[in-house]
Amino acid sequence: MTNSILAYQKYIGQEIEKLTIPSSPKNLYDPISYFLNIGGKRMRPVLTLMGCELFNADYKIAKHAALTVELFHNFSLIHDDIMDEAPLRRGNETVHQKWNVNIGILSGDALLIIAYQQLSKYEPSILAQLLPLINQTAIEVCEGQQYDMDFETKQDVSIDQYLQMIKFKTAVLLGCSLKMGAIVGGANENDANELYNFGVNLGIAFQLQDDILDVYADQDKFGKQVGGDIIANKKTYLLIKAFEDANSFQKNELNLLILEQDLVKKVAAVKSLYSDLDIKSKTEQKMNDFYDIALQNLDAIQISNDKKQPLLDLAHFLMGREN
Amino acid sequence: MTNSILAYQKYIGQEIEKLTIPSSPKNLYDPISYFLNIGGKRMRPVLTLMGCELFNADYKIAKHAALTVELFHNFSLIHDDIMDEAPLRRGNETVHQKWNVNIGILSGDALLIIAYQQLSKYEPSILAQLLPLINQTAIEVCEGQQYDMDFETKQDVSIDQYLQMIKFKTAVLLGCSLKMGAIVGGANENDANELYNFGVNLGIAFQLQDDILDVYADQDKFGKQVGGDIIANKKTYLLIKAFEDANSFQKNELNLLILEQDLVKKVAAVKSLYSDLDIKSKTEQKMNDFYDIALQNLDAIQISNDKKQPLLDLAHFLMGREN
Repeated sequence: MTNSILAYQKYIGQEIEKLTIPSSPKNLYDPISYFLNIGGKRMRPVLTLMGCELFNADYKIAKHAALTVELFHNFSLIHDDIMDEAPLRRGNETVHQKWNVNIGILSGDALLIIAYQQLSKYEPSILAQLLPLINQTAIEVCEGQQYDMDFETKQDVSIDQYLQMIKFKTAVLLGCSLKMGAIVGGANENDANELYNFGVNLGIAFQLQDDILDVYADQDKFGKQVGGDIIANKKTYLLIKAFEDANSFQKNELNLLILEQDLVKKVAAVKSLYSDLDIKSKTEQKMNDFYDIALQNLDAIQISNDKKQPLLDLAHFLMGREN
Repeated sequence: MTNSILAYQKYIGQEIEKLTIPSSPKNLYDPISYFLNIGGKRMRPVLTLMGCELFNADYKIAKHAALTVELFHNFSLIHDDIMDEAPLRRGNETVHQKWNVNIGILSGDALLIIAYQQLSKYEPSILAQLLPLINQTAIEVCEGQQYDMDFETKQDVSIDQYLQMIKFKTAVLLGCSLKMGAIVGGANENDANELYNFGVNLGIAFQLQDDILDVYADQDKFGKQVGGDIIANKKTYLLIKAFEDANSFQKNELNLLILEQDLVKKVAAVKSLYSDLDIKSKTEQKMNDFYDIALQNLDAIQISNDKKQPLLDLAHFLMGREN
């Protein structure tokens, strides 16, 4: 990670600590303070600060926009954790686990409102540009989460539907984070939109990489269990593509493997099928397509290349590439 | 109800029908359309339209602000119904009952965001006044809901704590609804604040009236079961005041009655104690205090009396008074 990214992370971490979350009612605000303190990479607010500085503006003027996207992201995590019945987040108990579901719902609601409160610190002309953007993004994030839940029980998820889901659930908030910084930094509409698209396409590429790593990562370097998606029958790009490209014999085998109880055998057999169907390289190809478009988006911004270097470094870092 | 209120209700009902709620994903948006269609009195958006017209402005310019408060209110109901485990709302199944809790959480979230989308239709200078107001109100509504839930298991709720709870949970949104109309209608800050206070104080008076009616209404004219609060051991103004004024013998009796299984006997005995302690008239006195302050707030607005008449009529109507 570059120094500048670390510096942005540190800055935003300090600003989150400085937020004055009220102390009463305890059951409303303690979960918010707790959840904000268990950390995370703060990638979204870092993008906002970088998006602002790209246009020669002091990144600190994007502070409230950066806090907005980070608070919004944490709201969505608290509610997603309830819906996914997740006991842990970043190695700590989730809010509904540590308190209860009602407290998770209400403190999540309050956190979303606190995110909007940050936004209202901008002057009217900036606010009027930021609010529709975060609203549109927020509603898309909800749609993405709904599609993701729907897909769990849906038989025939297409590649396009899957890409739409990960775009909404994850990628648009990255684009929004960057564009909010661009707006605060005084970018023109074209540049702000290219930066938005850079974030969205990079986000989709990153999510596809995540699907690949879940199957093919070195267990030593991977934070989760390699093969976890296969074991959980998660409809990833790889599984959907495999079903799409499989012949009727292979389809049958995949359907049987979903019921397989021997998990080591299951992971090995699905990987073998992926290998027969060349799924890894097909997914890498799709990932590279989105990554290339993201780089084109960045290239199209009418700003000198040296100004873009930090964002290029970030893209390389996120995609695990050498500089 | 006056003709003008009926006309406002009809107008806002039509505007809610005209809202374009997307059709997909179905599990996100069907619950929103369903819940908005089961109606309600639309009292909050009516207040917004009336607040706007008070200042000689066309009430239709307050349409989006009126929709904001109504959509916000419906979001809070969907989530409150989950937290209260309520199976019915306005005689219809609640969202989490008809679908499930996850769908209730996420469609509620989306509805809150849709409320903010309505707000962003105003020009920057108006938006910059409306957003902090709805944010502050929304966070207070969350706090009120949290206090209400906390009070269920809290032994010693004071009168002041109870009044603060009903102010936040119910009254501030009435004040906010009126003030949003005033802002859109071009009111000066003083008048807008007096109108806000009129709504808040009227709201508290209305809630105290609700507590009284739950015990003393004619069953024929009352929508709910008379005595329901007593049966549920709900900490209303009446019960809290009774505990405050009771001697040690009466306190003991009240504590025993909370465990009483014979519900007819329970209601009669609590009412008898209320009578001994003069609780009904003490609560009416407090209600009248807030109502009087509300009327003083309305009086203080620098607008001709004939313009205020519809709001005075509404206040009379809500408090069940003759004109």
